[in-house]
Amino acid sequence: MTTTPTTPWVFLKGHGTENDFVILPDPDNALDLPPHVVAALCDRRAGIGGDGVLHVVRSAAHPEARAMAGEAEWFMDYRNGDGSVAEMCGNGVRVFARYLQHAGHTGAGDLAVATRAGVKHVHLAKDGDVTVRMGRAVLPPEQVQVTVGGRGWPAYNVNMGNPHAVAFVEDLTHAGDLLGTPGYAPAAVYPDGVNIEFVADRGPRHVAMRVHERGSGETRSCGTGACAVAVAAARRDGADPAVTGLPATYTVDLPGGRLVITEQPDGEIEMTGPAVLVGEGRIAAEWLESSFG
Amino acid sequence: MTTTPTTPWVFLKGHGTENDFVILPDPDNALDLPPHVVAALCDRRAGIGGDGVLHVVRSAAHPEARAMAGEAEWFMDYRNGDGSVAEMCGNGVRVFARYLQHAGHTGAGDLAVATRAGVKHVHLAKDGDVTVRMGRAVLPPEQVQVTVGGRGWPAYNVNMGNPHAVAFVEDLTHAGDLLGTPGYAPAAVYPDGVNIEFVADRGPRHVAMRVHERGSGETRSCGTGACAVAVAAARRDGADPAVTGLPATYTVDLPGGRLVITEQPDGEIEMTGPAVLVGEGRIAAEWLESSFG
Repeated sequence: MTTTPTTPWVFLKGHGTENDFVILPDPDNALDLPPHVVAALCDRRAGIGGDGVLHVVRSAAHPEARAMAGEAEWFMDYRNGDGSVAEMCGNGVRVFARYLQHAGHTGAGDLAVATRAGVKHVHLAKDGDVTVRMGRAVLPPEQVQVTVGGRGWPAYNVNMGNPHAVAFVEDLTHAGDLLGTPGYAPAAVYPDGVNIEFVADRGPRHVAMRVHERGSGETRSCGTGACAVAVAAARRDGADPAVTGLPATYTVDLPGGRLVITEQPDGEIEMTGPAVLVGEGRIAAEWLESSFG
Repeated sequence: MTTTPTTPWVFLKGHGTENDFVILPDPDNALDLPPHVVAALCDRRAGIGGDGVLHVVRSAAHPEARAMAGEAEWFMDYRNGDGSVAEMCGNGVRVFARYLQHAGHTGAGDLAVATRAGVKHVHLAKDGDVTVRMGRAVLPPEQVQVTVGGRGWPAYNVNMGNPHAVAFVEDLTHAGDLLGTPGYAPAAVYPDGVNIEFVADRGPRHVAMRVHERGSGETRSCGTGACAVAVAAARRDGADPAVTGLPATYTVDLPGGRLVITEQPDGEIEMTGPAVLVGEGRIAAEWLESSFG
């Protein structure tokens, strides 16, 4: 049952490479968070504004996380900006970890976070950067091509739990100077669509990218996209860690900031980048009342 | 001189018909607000996000408002989202008044607010709506036309301190289903560009509008645009208050909400609508430090 809250909600706003979130601390899982209220909070003009909500709950207090409570004290109950539930968000989990540190729930060092995609391992560095282990990439064998207008580029087909097509181009300005979304072929390879990355070299093991996310269009940042780009670059450069036995580290510049991606010889991919808290306060009780309406 | 603040800043977020603002209470004018910090605060992903900043200062404490201090205790130091200074904002002054009420600086009833466009008279109703007197419209004699693709509509030429071209159309969907900005003719009538409103009837003295703001493209709301639309509708309907001697009241639906506009027989235009506070809190000291750079 949906009931209007009787006390103002505590919130924070934060971002990781400009993937931004409304953070709702709720250790005891006491908040009622229907989708339309999540969407109202994420509305950039009529609400606080964000790509999604990081609902911060003790694992023991949430039915979806209770089984992970022994391993990870906190559960990232991630909601998309439209109010739907999501499994995981790489930029989100870094900001989530930064919040736990800010609130005194953890210090610098290693941290395990429960998510709907399982327990994620995070490291809070003393310099403020946050690293998250993103799992392994799978490179399906199908050849794919990314298209813009009449032009096409061969693309690396990289799956990070979600599908990516990574195309290396000479000039990012051209690749992004588009109305709408670039295309891909053959369509059958991605029956549910694909995230498309355009990548240009900036220096040794240093690239810049632009990303067109499935369903969202071009965005300022995409964590799994940056990982897919580093994986593709390592294959292109003959630096596949499974072959060389050495970690491959790439600096990846996105429109919203810089991420550093390391792929280990066992395939595990680590993503490191900033996690920023902008402000914190309370949602007005009157606003909550009208939003629960 | 720009110095990094040593204490967190109090902020609120609010909106009027989805024209949204970061509110910075600063009675003694103690905050240093360089343009790049205003722009950072208004950044919707890396900051709090808003169309502009409402810097709330006692008139006596601000050199631009001191002369108005006897008439209006508070000065709306309005800043655009890019950090530049602006004279006035009709939706902004309603939200400004709502904040003063929220903070206990004023009650329901009449209020005078100092702005760079002079003292503005506001009324806070008990039902939560806020009315602001927007001044008088001028209707320059030049005939104008608004164009979309190959089509053109005759338009009312209405100046509310800023220029508007108001075109009545059958179908708002068509009028707004555009790439880019509609055109106008003759170009010489608006050497500095013009705000363009498309208007469709919804009922007696009830219209809906879409607005393309000079320099911003289509927006969710425009206070002076809604006033220009009501003025044009009154002329079209033979209800010009200067002729009839009667006030003309129009309900104007914008994408971001509903405004009620009344033009008095003396030409004064009153705009009434909601003013919503979403939340309040503090900007993180670390964020301020990095934004002041």
